[in-house]
Amino acid sequence: MKLKLLYTCMAITGLAGTAFAQETVDQAATQKIREEGLNHSKVMETAFYLTDVSGPRLANSPGLKKAQAWAVNQLKSWGLSNSKLEPWGKFGKGWEVQKNYAAVTLPYYHAIIAIPKAWTPGTNGAIKSEVVLVKADSVAELDKYKGKLAGKIVIFDTQNTLKRITKPDLERYTDEQLAEMAAAKPAAAGQRRAFDPNSPQFAAMRKARAMRTAISQFLVDEKVGLIISQGRGTDGTTFTTNGASYADTAKAVAPELETSGEDYLRILRLVKAGQKVEMEADIKTQFITDDLQGYNVVAEIPGTDKKLKEQVIMIGGHLDSWHGATGATDNAAGSAVMMEAMRILKAIGFKPKRTIRIALWSSEEQGLFGSRGYVAAHFGDPKTMELKPEQKTLDAYYNLDNGTGKIRGIYLQGDTAAGPIFQAWLAPFKDLGATTVTASNTGGTDHQSFDAVGLPGFQFIQDAMDYGTRTHHSNQDTYDRLSEDDLKQAATIVASFVYNTSERKDMIPRKALPTPPPAATGTR
Amino acid sequence: MKLKLLYTCMAITGLAGTAFAQETVDQAATQKIREEGLNHSKVMETAFYLTDVSGPRLANSPGLKKAQAWAVNQLKSWGLSNSKLEPWGKFGKGWEVQKNYAAVTLPYYHAIIAIPKAWTPGTNGAIKSEVVLVKADSVAELDKYKGKLAGKIVIFDTQNTLKRITKPDLERYTDEQLAEMAAAKPAAAGQRRAFDPNSPQFAAMRKARAMRTAISQFLVDEKVGLIISQGRGTDGTTFTTNGASYADTAKAVAPELETSGEDYLRILRLVKAGQKVEMEADIKTQFITDDLQGYNVVAEIPGTDKKLKEQVIMIGGHLDSWHGATGATDNAAGSAVMMEAMRILKAIGFKPKRTIRIALWSSEEQGLFGSRGYVAAHFGDPKTMELKPEQKTLDAYYNLDNGTGKIRGIYLQGDTAAGPIFQAWLAPFKDLGATTVTASNTGGTDHQSFDAVGLPGFQFIQDAMDYGTRTHHSNQDTYDRLSEDDLKQAATIVASFVYNTSERKDMIPRKALPTPPPAATGTR
Repeated sequence: MKLKLLYTCMAITGLAGTAFAQETVDQAATQKIREEGLNHSKVMETAFYLTDVSGPRLANSPGLKKAQAWAVNQLKSWGLSNSKLEPWGKFGKGWEVQKNYAAVTLPYYHAIIAIPKAWTPGTNGAIKSEVVLVKADSVAELDKYKGKLAGKIVIFDTQNTLKRITKPDLERYTDEQLAEMAAAKPAAAGQRRAFDPNSPQFAAMRKARAMRTAISQFLVDEKVGLIISQGRGTDGTTFTTNGASYADTAKAVAPELETSGEDYLRILRLVKAGQKVEMEADIKTQFITDDLQGYNVVAEIPGTDKKLKEQVIMIGGHLDSWHGATGATDNAAGSAVMMEAMRILKAIGFKPKRTIRIALWSSEEQGLFGSRGYVAAHFGDPKTMELKPEQKTLDAYYNLDNGTGKIRGIYLQGDTAAGPIFQAWLAPFKDLGATTVTASNTGGTDHQSFDAVGLPGFQFIQDAMDYGTRTHHSNQDTYDRLSEDDLKQAATIVASFVYNTSERKDMIPRKALPTPPPAATGTR
Repeated sequence: MKLKLLYTCMAITGLAGTAFAQETVDQAATQKIREEGLNHSKVMETAFYLTDVSGPRLANSPGLKKAQAWAVNQLKSWGLSNSKLEPWGKFGKGWEVQKNYAAVTLPYYHAIIAIPKAWTPGTNGAIKSEVVLVKADSVAELDKYKGKLAGKIVIFDTQNTLKRITKPDLERYTDEQLAEMAAAKPAAAGQRRAFDPNSPQFAAMRKARAMRTAISQFLVDEKVGLIISQGRGTDGTTFTTNGASYADTAKAVAPELETSGEDYLRILRLVKAGQKVEMEADIKTQFITDDLQGYNVVAEIPGTDKKLKEQVIMIGGHLDSWHGATGATDNAAGSAVMMEAMRILKAIGFKPKRTIRIALWSSEEQGLFGSRGYVAAHFGDPKTMELKPEQKTLDAYYNLDNGTGKIRGIYLQGDTAAGPIFQAWLAPFKDLGATTVTASNTGGTDHQSFDAVGLPGFQFIQDAMDYGTRTHHSNQDTYDRLSEDDLKQAATIVASFVYNTSERKDMIPRKALPTPPPAATGTR
């Protein structure tokens, strides 16, 4: 409501008008940040090291460790303080692909596009087998396969056809969409959705999950050679998932290969038509168990104001990725932008009043673990809402994790009191397309860990580009997907937000503390 | 001009009006054809055997031979006569991929999406090597690589970035586009474009070609292990080409792998940044030299009219494809539709006056060789315009080779006298979106072989769908790209056109014979 009135006011008085009189933006500093960020950017160089040079950055993988080590050194070399890996708790096994070859050999040769599911084992050398269609709606039906699947390559039936992409791959927000977002009301705050574990839907889910578990166990027991499953995606783009637990105590699973829709459906059609299909495969994966700990990269520009330096502004994004490509848009983009924002602030010689800290999270893809662990260690427990003293000193957290698209505004995450402040801070970037403050929430990334303990945690609004259609968790999330101009713009705006937050007289206003869910029911 | 007046007339009198009074369409036959083609179609079953079951159908490959043999039998089983392979002349070697594995192993493991260039040799077993960037603008500059490339995997520099697709993949003609086509004037007929072999452009082309040849020879002499080159395409879609001559007398070339844009550019960026990149590859290709002859599939429904049965209507499309996928839209689609049109005519018990012949061409992709050879053997020589007696008896040839899109009309290829006839024949298919007769030409496929010797050869107008963006010569041209409703529509319309051509009192009017080009200059 407050926000709506504000917009009415804006329409009359304009952005530089009375509504934001208290939010003075330092024009000279903004200009310096723009000059450095737009004309002397190093964001693509940073992105190159995080993607092409480091490789896939699955949680606790060698690729992630390489990127983390590079980031720690790079931030140091830019003059940041306390640049280090900070453990956030136990994660589990690292994993990487060391060989990935699979091909159809009958009725004719055809190498397939496929990626091993994360944390699945390999084939233990080259295997070759007829492809066997496994069809079972109940555990009893599995009996007919007993003793017949050892070393075999198996496929499941599916009703899936190929979902063709009929809209353009690269999308940006239209003015109408942004206006709609700007007019959105804040989502109901705090209380998480409770559910009834005895509901019919939940019972059906439990049953389906039990069947999947039974089939998985059966295939392991039968020593199946390799499971072929259909990856989402089309045109050679394949989205990847995990196929097993990363826990050091996890049960063994069968090797499983997520296969491009085209290749999967071709094999399935042939098998179902009674044609003999033979495949060969050689998959090698490596588990890394020497250190089960998870780490975040952190580094600081220390505050210089005697009183305010105890207060901290944080920016971040997750550095870990899925394993099918180099996680360029998810989320080397956000990581590179946040590193670049820190570089910009150092490059212009900024001596902030408050302390500025960057964090590059890990294990975001498994459940925001890196940021949750960090928040638990520093700020409090969202389950009990027991808060630590540092919770009071965290001014704001800004996150970037929605791909390569430029910043179009910011989600208030219901913290409507921050709206007029951010509106004023966005004003100098109208020419760069960043204008929209929305009271609504966005989810699925690390600002939620902060939000969960009552801290002002914000994710920027970003143009979608091809995040949903092509890159998000796919085998095509590579450096080429990065849009240089968009990343420069984003780093410039983030640097400016950080500057303004640091120099502001007061901390960013907070919304009410969330209520922990009732103990009697669960959450999901 | 004539055509334009006709359209004016149509606008006033309507399609069933006086303008086409002489072109009576048999409504009952049309209804039977529609019923069989739209409601009892076997076109997807046919397409399945031509694609999934047969595999890639490169000229003279085992895949093409399998599809040809299947088609001969299938046409026989539908009751067609004289179903056989007809040799059209010497083509050259067959070729197929028997192993295709390549991966980056340093700085981290990553299997790449890549297809061997057609008619290139394999790596003669597994190889592993640092990737070497070869940069040479002149033959002299190659010297620095002398003695250093044996067994090495090499890459060339490029200015290419990745061309992202910003428009929707699946496109259909709009009413405006169709109206524009309908209003087009016929292209200048007959005379082919002459060129001056002494022009500066041609000299530059010659020089560039000579440099490419010199580099190729150098790499063969140096016994290079494998060349990595950038395939056109994005998102895992890679377009394939040939890398060597199919002639039995062709010189040896180096193994060459056409690599997805994303993989190629990643390797190139790393190498150019001074990062050590290592790859492993195991490519096996097989040359088939036991029969260098090329063959077309032909089959007939014999004419029943004492006089007219000597006259022949032909329909066709090329059955051969490129090797990166199963050539579904290029051109199993056209082949399946033409086979289905013949099946429909048999299924409705049609006893045509004239003889109806289907031809599924081969080696279209290398230069319309199958249809050219057929035309040379039966109808005449386009170079001299010496014609054979059969030239007089070929009524019309209808071709389909523009992907999976439904028929929206027909190109007259300048034969404007046929315009009113086809307009009348399309009238019963207005509800299926086929309305447009354009005087203009279309090129690149087998109707040109007929057109070149003064025969009425026509290609239908088809919706583009994703032919240009995804399928045409790509590794993604698979069965999944086929649009069932579109293929059914096309087969129905082709069957109806054939019916009408067979039963028409007169043959399709012809345009003037083309003039052979002046002997003094060449053509291209």
